[in-house]
Amino acid sequence: VTREDGGQQPSEGEDEWVGGLLARLPAHRALRVPPGHDCGAVSLGAGAGDGPLVVGTCDVLVDGVHFELARCGAAAAARKAVLVNLSDLAASASVPVAFWAGVVLPRGADHALFAALAEGFADVSREADVACAGGDTNVADGPLTISVTLLGRPGPMGVVTRAGAAPGDVLSVTGALGGSLDASLGGRHLSFTPRVREALALARHSVPHAMMDLSDGLSRDLPRLCRASGVGARVRRDDVPVHPDASRAGGDARSPLERALHDGEDFELLVAHAPLSEDTAAALRAEGVALHEIGRVVGPEEGIRLELPGRATAPLVAKGYDHLRQAARRT
Amino acid sequence: VTREDGGQQPSEGEDEWVGGLLARLPAHRALRVPPGHDCGAVSLGAGAGDGPLVVGTCDVLVDGVHFELARCGAAAAARKAVLVNLSDLAASASVPVAFWAGVVLPRGADHALFAALAEGFADVSREADVACAGGDTNVADGPLTISVTLLGRPGPMGVVTRAGAAPGDVLSVTGALGGSLDASLGGRHLSFTPRVREALALARHSVPHAMMDLSDGLSRDLPRLCRASGVGARVRRDDVPVHPDASRAGGDARSPLERALHDGEDFELLVAHAPLSEDTAAALRAEGVALHEIGRVVGPEEGIRLELPGRATAPLVAKGYDHLRQAARRT
Repeated sequence: VTREDGGQQPSEGEDEWVGGLLARLPAHRALRVPPGHDCGAVSLGAGAGDGPLVVGTCDVLVDGVHFELARCGAAAAARKAVLVNLSDLAASASVPVAFWAGVVLPRGADHALFAALAEGFADVSREADVACAGGDTNVADGPLTISVTLLGRPGPMGVVTRAGAAPGDVLSVTGALGGSLDASLGGRHLSFTPRVREALALARHSVPHAMMDLSDGLSRDLPRLCRASGVGARVRRDDVPVHPDASRAGGDARSPLERALHDGEDFELLVAHAPLSEDTAAALRAEGVALHEIGRVVGPEEGIRLELPGRATAPLVAKGYDHLRQAARRT
Repeated sequence: VTREDGGQQPSEGEDEWVGGLLARLPAHRALRVPPGHDCGAVSLGAGAGDGPLVVGTCDVLVDGVHFELARCGAAAAARKAVLVNLSDLAASASVPVAFWAGVVLPRGADHALFAALAEGFADVSREADVACAGGDTNVADGPLTISVTLLGRPGPMGVVTRAGAAPGDVLSVTGALGGSLDASLGGRHLSFTPRVREALALARHSVPHAMMDLSDGLSRDLPRLCRASGVGARVRRDDVPVHPDASRAGGDARSPLERALHDGEDFELLVAHAPLSEDTAAALRAEGVALHEIGRVVGPEEGIRLELPGRATAPLVAKGYDHLRQAARRT
């Protein structure tokens, strides 16, 4: 995946810009989960009371940023556009139902490209058991752009958000991290399995206090969960599960651990939860849900730090992908 | 609005490509209104039975195609991206509730552009009383691209679609057509009022059998409604309400009527309905809803024709905007 240094850089990062945007948006009586989490949620009821809740999330993928069309083909790009939204919806422990897809074709696109997009949408629709409920197609002088908005209904715990983590909570991830973007390793970021099943199992056992998916890298995403919850975090460096791809990835001299901490597009869930009882842990294992404990939630004044062997700690500095700053160079 | 002849043309038009796409999509038990109408609708229920219905629509707008950023600014572009979706939702006679916005900024975009987008979203959110429930922001080497998915709940008649028109029905439009795109006239396409109020009034009086919004021009959109309903149509040429902008628009030698028939982006509703009783007509007038009768629905074998003065008719040939073919040159 191409994510090169842009020419002119915005002076602030993504979170600051988006934070400014969110502050300008008016409140609305229908909003149950406002923007700023992996999913928003709104009440469909007519009055001020509670109506049925719909959960939604939107992601836009662009050729040259989130996939390379010439390498992966349009079907894989369309699939990924739905998969990343499934991952966001999983982070809210919701049940996916349907998506809308907006496509901008590069001028001169032929019918084969369009047909491959359709095939990708159809395939992922079947695999994930979600309906394609509509879309829009345009042609413009630019890269292939695929925007997907995915809707769902709340799962057994309602809508889980990034807020809700409290000091004393355990921090866990649902799988190993790092190296997802390396194309020579097959590009896990194109063909991952969104953790929908795992999230719903966690919700059935009332596990998550707060949750998000790891799309921009642990070091960039964890601070977002901490900010939303008003907490700090300690990550035990040696407990971070490192994906085999992180050892095999080329392109630069970073260590596998560095890749696990800072790479993006792992699409594993980051979960804050109470220490698991033996019963719950056994039940989750029986359902095939892996929770790798990587640290704990602390007070906000303690910041976000990495625990090194011995008693030393170091700040966990965000090096994950910033969509606006785009200062991170990836392999 | 720039809509020039592309270099390489797809060999088929938008409707054929999209039709092929829709044919590939798998059926899904949640779908209540499948893709192919102005809005889709899905049941949020867990089982096969009926759960709460959510109505949704998605439109993607691109700089140089649907707006000219350098001329109109980012706030107007963001507003338009929500307005066009409100128009689609109006066509289903639904009540708008919330939208998600996905934005691709051109590389090098400064914070002022981002702030203007935010202002546009905030303004239209207040004006239309809809929540912004989330979004996504990216940077890429391409034009400013704004994708909006808008959700709503069904109105008094449930979800009105393009299907349902029957021979004998009257065809009406909610306002005058033509000249919307002429930038020298202020660009009505950027600042129209979506017919949400009118659509809900029509639904309260059980008027619409079928409905759609006129975004690509009457001559291109009417055949879509006819195809979805399995009918033909007669349009009385001299009853088509021509907008004053259609007389004042420059750029080519087309007559005001030609502009009214073939221009796009009027965002008026096209309604098929039974002949109005005097009571209903009076009630609609009292609520400030204008219905201009322009023709009638006939059998499918009669095709789609324009009635000229006297007894002559002529085929109504689509010259509206085809997003894939892009053969229409606009002023």
